[in-house]
Amino acid sequence: MTIGTHNPVRDTLGRALRLGVVGGGTGSFIGPVHRSAAVLDGRFEVVAGVLSSDAAKCATGGAAIGLEPSRAYVSVADMIAAEAARRDGIDAIAVMTPNDRHFDACRLALLAGLHVVCDKPLTNLPAQARELVRQARERNLVLCVTHNYAGYPMVRQARAMVQSGVIGAVRMVCAEYFQAGMAAPVESGEMTPKLKWKLDHARSGPSLVMGDIGSHAHHLAAFVCGSPVCAVAADIGALMPGRRGDDYALMLWRFANGARGTCSVTQAAAGAENNLTVRVYGETGMLEWQHLMPNYLRHAALGVPPQMLGRGEAYLLPAAQRASRLTRGHPEGFLESFANLYADAAEAMAARIACTVADPLALDFPDGRDGLRGVLFIEAALLSSAAGGAWTDCALE
Amino acid sequence: MTIGTHNPVRDTLGRALRLGVVGGGTGSFIGPVHRSAAVLDGRFEVVAGVLSSDAAKCATGGAAIGLEPSRAYVSVADMIAAEAARRDGIDAIAVMTPNDRHFDACRLALLAGLHVVCDKPLTNLPAQARELVRQARERNLVLCVTHNYAGYPMVRQARAMVQSGVIGAVRMVCAEYFQAGMAAPVESGEMTPKLKWKLDHARSGPSLVMGDIGSHAHHLAAFVCGSPVCAVAADIGALMPGRRGDDYALMLWRFANGARGTCSVTQAAAGAENNLTVRVYGETGMLEWQHLMPNYLRHAALGVPPQMLGRGEAYLLPAAQRASRLTRGHPEGFLESFANLYADAAEAMAARIACTVADPLALDFPDGRDGLRGVLFIEAALLSSAAGGAWTDCALE
Amino acid sequence: MTIGTHNPVRDTLGRALRLGVVGGGTGSFIGPVHRSAAVLDGRFEVVAGVLSSDAAKCATGGAAIGLEPSRAYVSVADMIAAEAARRDGIDAIAVMTPNDRHFDACRLALLAGLHVVCDKPLTNLPAQARELVRQARERNLVLCVTHNYAGYPMVRQARAMVQSGVIGAVRMVCAEYFQAGMAAPVESGEMTPKLKWKLDHARSGPSLVMGDIGSHAHHLAAFVCGSPVCAVAADIGALMPGRRGDDYALMLWRFANGARGTCSVTQAAAGAENNLTVRVYGETGMLEWQHLMPNYLRHAALGVPPQMLGRGEAYLLPAAQRASRLTRGHPEGFLESFANLYADAAEAMAARIACTVADPLALDFPDGRDGLRGVLFIEAALLSSAAGGAWTDCALE
Amino acid sequence: MTIGTHNPVRDTLGRALRLGVVGGGTGSFIGPVHRSAAVLDGRFEVVAGVLSSDAAKCATGGAAIGLEPSRAYVSVADMIAAEAARRDGIDAIAVMTPNDRHFDACRLALLAGLHVVCDKPLTNLPAQARELVRQARERNLVLCVTHNYAGYPMVRQARAMVQSGVIGAVRMVCAEYFQAGMAAPVESGEMTPKLKWKLDHARSGPSLVMGDIGSHAHHLAAFVCGSPVCAVAADIGALMPGRRGDDYALMLWRFANGARGTCSVTQAAAGAENNLTVRVYGETGMLEWQHLMPNYLRHAALGVPPQMLGRGEAYLLPAAQRASRLTRGHPEGFLESFANLYADAAEAMAARIACTVADPLALDFPDGRDGLRGVLFIEAALLSSAAGGAWTDCALE
Repeated sequence: MTIGTHNPVRDTLGRALRLGVVGGGTGSFIGPVHRSAAVLDGRFEVVAGVLSSDAAKCATGGAAIGLEPSRAYVSVADMIAAEAARRDGIDAIAVMTPNDRHFDACRLALLAGLHVVCDKPLTNLPAQARELVRQARERNLVLCVTHNYAGYPMVRQARAMVQSGVIGAVRMVCAEYFQAGMAAPVESGEMTPKLKWKLDHARSGPSLVMGDIGSHAHHLAAFVCGSPVCAVAADIGALMPGRRGDDYALMLWRFANGARGTCSVTQAAAGAENNLTVRVYGETGMLEWQHLMPNYLRHAALGVPPQMLGRGEAYLLPAAQRASRLTRGHPEGFLESFANLYADAAEAMAARIACTVADPLALDFPDGRDGLRGVLFIEAALLSSAAGGAWTDCALE
Repeated sequence: MTIGTHNPVRDTLGRALRLGVVGGGTGSFIGPVHRSAAVLDGRFEVVAGVLSSDAAKCATGGAAIGLEPSRAYVSVADMIAAEAARRDGIDAIAVMTPNDRHFDACRLALLAGLHVVCDKPLTNLPAQARELVRQARERNLVLCVTHNYAGYPMVRQARAMVQSGVIGAVRMVCAEYFQAGMAAPVESGEMTPKLKWKLDHARSGPSLVMGDIGSHAHHLAAFVCGSPVCAVAADIGALMPGRRGDDYALMLWRFANGARGTCSVTQAAAGAENNLTVRVYGETGMLEWQHLMPNYLRHAALGVPPQMLGRGEAYLLPAAQRASRLTRGHPEGFLESFANLYADAAEAMAARIACTVADPLALDFPDGRDGLRGVLFIEAALLSSAAGGAWTDCALE
Repeated sequence: MTIGTHNPVRDTLGRALRLGVVGGGTGSFIGPVHRSAAVLDGRFEVVAGVLSSDAAKCATGGAAIGLEPSRAYVSVADMIAAEAARRDGIDAIAVMTPNDRHFDACRLALLAGLHVVCDKPLTNLPAQARELVRQARERNLVLCVTHNYAGYPMVRQARAMVQSGVIGAVRMVCAEYFQAGMAAPVESGEMTPKLKWKLDHARSGPSLVMGDIGSHAHHLAAFVCGSPVCAVAADIGALMPGRRGDDYALMLWRFANGARGTCSVTQAAAGAENNLTVRVYGETGMLEWQHLMPNYLRHAALGVPPQMLGRGEAYLLPAAQRASRLTRGHPEGFLESFANLYADAAEAMAARIACTVADPLALDFPDGRDGLRGVLFIEAALLSSAAGGAWTDCALE
Repeated sequence: MTIGTHNPVRDTLGRALRLGVVGGGTGSFIGPVHRSAAVLDGRFEVVAGVLSSDAAKCATGGAAIGLEPSRAYVSVADMIAAEAARRDGIDAIAVMTPNDRHFDACRLALLAGLHVVCDKPLTNLPAQARELVRQARERNLVLCVTHNYAGYPMVRQARAMVQSGVIGAVRMVCAEYFQAGMAAPVESGEMTPKLKWKLDHARSGPSLVMGDIGSHAHHLAAFVCGSPVCAVAADIGALMPGRRGDDYALMLWRFANGARGTCSVTQAAAGAENNLTVRVYGETGMLEWQHLMPNYLRHAALGVPPQMLGRGEAYLLPAAQRASRLTRGHPEGFLESFANLYADAAEAMAARIACTVADPLALDFPDGRDGLRGVLFIEAALLSSAAGGAWTDCALE
């Protein structure tokens, strides 16, 4: 069923892609987001899923999201095998499990020739991420990592403006991501299942704060400024006294293009909401995007009044225009940002399936290499902090 | 297919309602919004539609939104007849045509026992609106009018706060709705089909600016302050010199509860986006909601610092909590506001179909009486302006 | 003593003007503002004053503001006579008494050949204001009315931008002034002396809310849009149930240049601070100034991103540049706005004393005619409200 | 002459203090600010000055600020000697010269028993600052350093709220100070005298960016959070390629109370105005102050809506109340922040002169120890940056 037709993407295949979801069952926050995002533009239909390894929960969960009973599976391997046997089997999987299960699910799918959309961080270990990148490349498969903030139209506008030289050479980038979820001593009370796995490093990876939000800030900064972070000096630890594990990371950055930067992330910032911001300063001006006002982008240049660019406006660059569904003054939000990644991934997948050429503007979604860069960055930041803040390399090559 | 499960609505029927859409075909802005909104929570599926009276366009339009070819009809009458003959026929229709066609489509549907969701203004003439209200009441059918701004969670929070006495007795309400679409002499160039029918009073009704946006501001103000407008003094005309028809309405209000107010609307405000705001002043404080920051509600009271309430927060009242899909700090927008009306209408429809009792919090959506109030208000404001701004009654009873 | 030298005004006389103050003694809010504003740029020195008609209080009050004992007088007549007998007698008076005493003080001073700075409203009766305008004109004396909001640099920028056609022909002006001082039933408790005279119509004039703040909003709107209000339709009364006298005025406007407008003022807006705003919409764009962010001016035009102009920037027009003391990013406030009126009035006074030509940019301060327009506007608005909101003429000529 | 009487400071001496100014002559930005600030509350009168070492300029400069010709001196030594011989000689000096001349002027004044107000940074070398602190302590003299941002009422409110435990134990402090003055290659064109001495390290000290603005951010952060910075990890250099000297410093902080922090300062941020902000995160909430909205303080706490506290409100703590001149909703700015330091320093000086006890709330102005901390901080940050960002101690004791 194709509902929305806002997004003028080419419908290469003449049909929606068939998606199998992994994770995101009952009680999940991100599961419904992934699923609504996938179908919003009619480029995917959710036809199969692994919502639990428990047979009963699997059935209930499948029914809750409208799956046919036979296509609610108890394992990724089962789903891949069974779907491969169908004429209308899945084209791709979307992975939204706890972090430690990303690698296996993605690897199995890639090996089976399925395209993949995976939540971030891509994996907990660099070697795993490298392996997924290699598999995707060798098999010519799409591997999209849902750094969804890169899906916001005004983030794409910022990137495109930097690329086109509107602010001149980039000199400084400041990224910040503050949340309040760990400001209270949440460990001492009853914990939700989500909090439980997050606090278990074997599952969530080497750093909770970096995996959860540091990786987002890192991707966003590099995406907007058009150059990867190549070195980091970090102070990582817990603002909450007595906490095991970390809840903050305060960092200095050097970018490949010579720019300097800062990155501050914490989940223990009492009073924060979900405050992700990025500012890029260039020779002649700066751009600022704040997640809590996602439909706007501030551009302040030397000698002229600062401007507030708005989503949906005719003056925006093509990369932002195409990522917009509604006209100016009609707010879009988090769901649409996610949907833009899915729409772009669909465009890329369909082109590979149909052996056609995808719209180049659709290929700017975060991919496996971005995911790998994030995993390497986390590793480097932790090393730096352990070494008293020494500058530590985190470049991909 | 049920995708999203954010909204914990009761699924009374155990299935999605089947919806037939009327209007909203190729090139429409509001069509995709209606359709995406209807399915977002899995309470509706779009299974039939009248997308054009031209057979060829009808087929193309139906295919574009994923309808089975047999369920893309060339007239409302056809759709109603054919669907009535199916075991899986439609439960309801959603009307998103030019204004002059609302009445016939709604009337036919109600006469056929179908529930209705209709865009605003409900009709062009008060007598028509009265007729629809009567039909819906007599047949115990849902008639929802998409004053979608009433679907925003923070608008519902505002209404609930006023109701619960947080700001004391209401004393003054200020509503404003400014757009820029008529700021330039759009009539003198090539006109879009949408603009063409809007500028044709036989189609768009007695006042373009009031039908398009004045009716929204009017509903929003009364919705938030909990009391209808009972009299208006208006100055209506064209800011653009030489324009036939109107593009602004500046008004003073009296509310049934004794409050005073102002309402300013224009589509000729160069520099505006889609700036709808409402402020309610009470004995001890005020509330302000701005459409361009829809996830927030400002509350300023005597003697204490003003507060900015946020969507998704635990401190919100139930009416706002239930209208929220995402957690705090994750922006929602226009689509979700629309989807909330659809979800509530679905709850009411399902309860009537199943002869159960709907969640009382779901029954606060704009209905036929609200639509009628809007039509009466437009009539009264035009009379007032013609009478040199004389106070003119616009109460429903 | 000349302290500040920020403002590059010409020092025509080679000395500061000598000022006698009338009113503003112990406990006054506005007295210290007037005095600090007068001396900020070194264009005036406060050398004499009438701070009380009680001899003892007069002496104490004079000492408190640093007057020589012999120059603290008990009446305006005494001050004028005694100062006229000195070689270093006063050049001008500044009147900051309750409204009913403005007329006599101003008249005596003008008759004695003294320049005048007077607080608003100029007088309580139109005939009085006409008389003062006539006296000042006949004697070639400066009569400045402290509509101090017209002293803010960004208000002057707005006026200059409108004048120079940046937004095209003006079509609509929206002014608003909300305060909270009358939101509570202040009459029922212990009243301050200031509140006592304000609530006494014999002293404060025919309308408290219009005299206090409506006159400011009226002047500001006309000042910025460059055209006087020529007709008003008003609803004036009390939002507070049972209140004698008024606390709100909601109005529609017509301007001489054909623009339409709205003006809403109330002192019973719980939650307001001192919220004066003006917005001017023209053919191609709009300007918005908010008193609570006085160092900025928003300019939004068709088809381009809205801009936020800042005080102290090199791109501002001369009328704004000259009214600025500090560089960009260094906030100025209420005091400086007042000081700008005093500096301009000083420039005009000095030019008349020295028989030279004043800087034309200095002559844009609110004068007696503006004061008279304000008094006429108040009268017309009250008549309109009494006549059920009928459009009522308030033009000067 | 005492003009303003807003600030209810006790007038211990029954007269204004007599001030001699050093620097701030023709063309200076900060000179008029110091002088206007000193006299705003009538606690000082400017009676003597060293405005140039050139006799002719000295006379002109003295005349321009209203000095008697005999009290316009060509050297600090001259001024001190001549004033000491007068019965009405100066009580204090205010130093606003280029940085390298602070030390000599302050030392001479302290040795002569004069109180001192000095611009920041106090000195260019730590040993000099230590010497001044010692001299002031031994002679019981006031040594006030004009970190004027600590004079803003809402900064004082923030400090007092932290002190009184409103946000619980402090965990993280983020300070930022961005300007744009060095964003363009200003060195390559005609340079103003001010820029010339700033770019000369022999005059401006070891780091331009740290002396100019880093020292302000450092003081403000420690002032608000109530604990000194004890260690810094820094990256200092030039964002502008090819620039000699520095224009940015990106830093991580550790505070004596265990809190972590960040400090980012640059004068090469194209698009910035004078953007100083400080945020303090505690156990249960956070406070944010932005210099461009100085009359407000944001307080966001766990589980309740964020609040915006306003200057002049009755709910503020005494430290903020007493620093306010105007009522709520009447903006104050940079001048008043400066004036508050002068008023407090005057209170302290008068108490020492009269051997009385000063209002304890007046004693919170930045003093010599704060100045010394700033100089030590600059030294430590430069060492850290040179050592690859190693954590470097900068505690006073």
